[in-house]
Amino acid sequence: MENIYKEALKVHKKYKGKIKITPVSPIKNKHDLSLLYTPGVAEASRQIVKDKKLSFDLTWRGRVVAVISDGSAVLGLGNIGPEAALPVMEGKALIFKQFTDVDAVPIVINTQDVSEIIQFVKNIAPSFAGINLEDIAAPACFQIEEALQDIGIPVFHDDQHGTAIVVAAALKNAAKVVDKSYSSLNVVVVGAGAAGLATTRMLLGLNCSADTCEIIPEHSRVKDVIVVDRNGALFSGRENQNIYKQAVSGISNKQKMSGSLSDVIKGADAVIGVSGPNLITRDMIKSMAKGAIVFAMANPIPEIMPSEALKAGAAIVASGRSDFPNQINNALVFPGIFLGVIKGRLAKITQEMKDKTSNMLASLVTNPSPTNIIPDMFYPKLAEHIAQAILQNNNK
Amino acid sequence: MENIYKEALKVHKKYKGKIKITPVSPIKNKHDLSLLYTPGVAEASRQIVKDKKLSFDLTWRGRVVAVISDGSAVLGLGNIGPEAALPVMEGKALIFKQFTDVDAVPIVINTQDVSEIIQFVKNIAPSFAGINLEDIAAPACFQIEEALQDIGIPVFHDDQHGTAIVVAAALKNAAKVVDKSYSSLNVVVVGAGAAGLATTRMLLGLNCSADTCEIIPEHSRVKDVIVVDRNGALFSGRENQNIYKQAVSGISNKQKMSGSLSDVIKGADAVIGVSGPNLITRDMIKSMAKGAIVFAMANPIPEIMPSEALKAGAAIVASGRSDFPNQINNALVFPGIFLGVIKGRLAKITQEMKDKTSNMLASLVTNPSPTNIIPDMFYPKLAEHIAQAILQNNNK
Repeated sequence: MENIYKEALKVHKKYKGKIKITPVSPIKNKHDLSLLYTPGVAEASRQIVKDKKLSFDLTWRGRVVAVISDGSAVLGLGNIGPEAALPVMEGKALIFKQFTDVDAVPIVINTQDVSEIIQFVKNIAPSFAGINLEDIAAPACFQIEEALQDIGIPVFHDDQHGTAIVVAAALKNAAKVVDKSYSSLNVVVVGAGAAGLATTRMLLGLNCSADTCEIIPEHSRVKDVIVVDRNGALFSGRENQNIYKQAVSGISNKQKMSGSLSDVIKGADAVIGVSGPNLITRDMIKSMAKGAIVFAMANPIPEIMPSEALKAGAAIVASGRSDFPNQINNALVFPGIFLGVIKGRLAKITQEMKDKTSNMLASLVTNPSPTNIIPDMFYPKLAEHIAQAILQNNNK
Repeated sequence: MENIYKEALKVHKKYKGKIKITPVSPIKNKHDLSLLYTPGVAEASRQIVKDKKLSFDLTWRGRVVAVISDGSAVLGLGNIGPEAALPVMEGKALIFKQFTDVDAVPIVINTQDVSEIIQFVKNIAPSFAGINLEDIAAPACFQIEEALQDIGIPVFHDDQHGTAIVVAAALKNAAKVVDKSYSSLNVVVVGAGAAGLATTRMLLGLNCSADTCEIIPEHSRVKDVIVVDRNGALFSGRENQNIYKQAVSGISNKQKMSGSLSDVIKGADAVIGVSGPNLITRDMIKSMAKGAIVFAMANPIPEIMPSEALKAGAAIVASGRSDFPNQINNALVFPGIFLGVIKGRLAKITQEMKDKTSNMLASLVTNPSPTNIIPDMFYPKLAEHIAQAILQNNNK
């Protein structure tokens, strides 16, 4: 691991970042300049005055998204601020470009105030075709995203929905491998932040807004989920839970179990870690049901190292990292989701689109096995498949 | 002109904009991914947590600037809003890249509220090495720029200072051509917006903040300037002038002349149009002093067409356009100024730097003539010369 960090720092220093701007219509002479700048550019502006939507056709807006973070919950590193979040956002922009042809601009902002962030995103919206919110801490992220659903371009908090989509896909295939039905699974989710609550909503087929959750009819769902935060299991009526945790706990944890992770993980079919390093022990894995499914997704250091989980008897292990098998990472879906946004010129990303994306992702693995429950980033035309799923029955 | 517009629209449609994002450190396999994204990227973040300045070395921040506009005063088109301003901002980003190696991101914003714009720029600052404000109407632009001088990266309103720098350079060379001393010139400035007031400040060697102007000692200056807005000449104590106009009028127009443009232009050595189409007539040019200097810089349609001005007896004519000789356009300096900002990692752009830039620009024309008072955009290594001027006696 230390070697990877050393080498990574060297690469970051060498290239001074990961992306750059390149002309698509070069200026070779004065004539080009008069077309692409003044006076010619005035005509593009005049056309857009007549019809704002033409900004998607006559500028790069139609193919560019913003990756915006306030640096409040970056990887497993916590609240490290905007400057330190920038390498991660630039990494996402690089992935957008390498795995699709979506242009993405990393933007880190100097405020963690909810209403200021909402205002900021509203103000910047005319520059982009979509907004990818990233690494914004819960519960602020829920309020921010909800307030931005009707600004004319999609606002998608990747830590929530990207994670939820990929986890649900991986869990469906994992269930097949251990020969259980998805709807029979008892799942423990470790972490009640953005990823934890969004994953729980997805696994239980819930549609939530602020403090209320509704069950989506005919949505696939696991049997039950118990969410654990640093104070133990969430259950309806527990103290010390914000409105978002309360809303989810009203529908999850049907037995109203209380206690610590080591209490509630006993007998569980799957555990999904979206919290921090080393929170899951070998003994906990040993206490799970036969055919235990372990997704330990904290980055860069997982809740339990994959080798440890296997030694403790886990049937299937996945992590968030590129250097182990079964990488469960949002990066599998966000490039394709925004490729769909751009191709379909979508105004928002619906729950139905997220479900279809998850099913599509799961279906790309034809014969799931313990080390192959999810496609990897280099699966041929992965982003195109995802975009196709998003655009099925596209209701703009 | 109609043909240029048609062709320009075709080019804009064909390329769907002018710039794109390109990887500088490509991802070819899982190992690359683990260096540039998780887990490796965490190390870059950790380093920046220790020292925020490293964000300039470990991300693209060290070489990228934002071109930000609220769309309130775009070219000569007026308040056309953010979407319609985007082609112009993208054009500037293209020029940055074509004439230097500065990366620039066009950002148009959905507010024209002064304090919201100030907050927006403060919030976005950690993403960039500098901010180029563009096409923001006066007087808002003065207040906005002034409030943003100490945010740690330079904030430069190009319509003000870019224009002022280039006009001063061109006027110095023009004076040589008509064999007058720069300090003897009586100048009329048509337009009291961002460009008009900033140019006046530069020509008179003034340092202004909000409602007060001070004379900068030992700054080169013309004899007098009369600024004309739609209500006629500004003079000290006139009604209907905002604080910025008042401050400048306290030092300019020494004879306190009142009246319309056609009144005050009589006998002037130079007229500088930074307002709108067709405001200067042949008769006005005829009433000027011998060896009349006419800069008609409104875009896309100048205050008087160059051919008309010449017919009326002007000795030297310049415009803002690429398709006539003597193009007085900010584009001559903004790429080099930000190249300097990036090379010197400057925190602000001082008046001294602007003066040096102007002098450098003038000096690049070794033998000024009526059709060659200013270098053109394709002058070899123009941006490098400008950057060098900016970085002389660099006081970070």
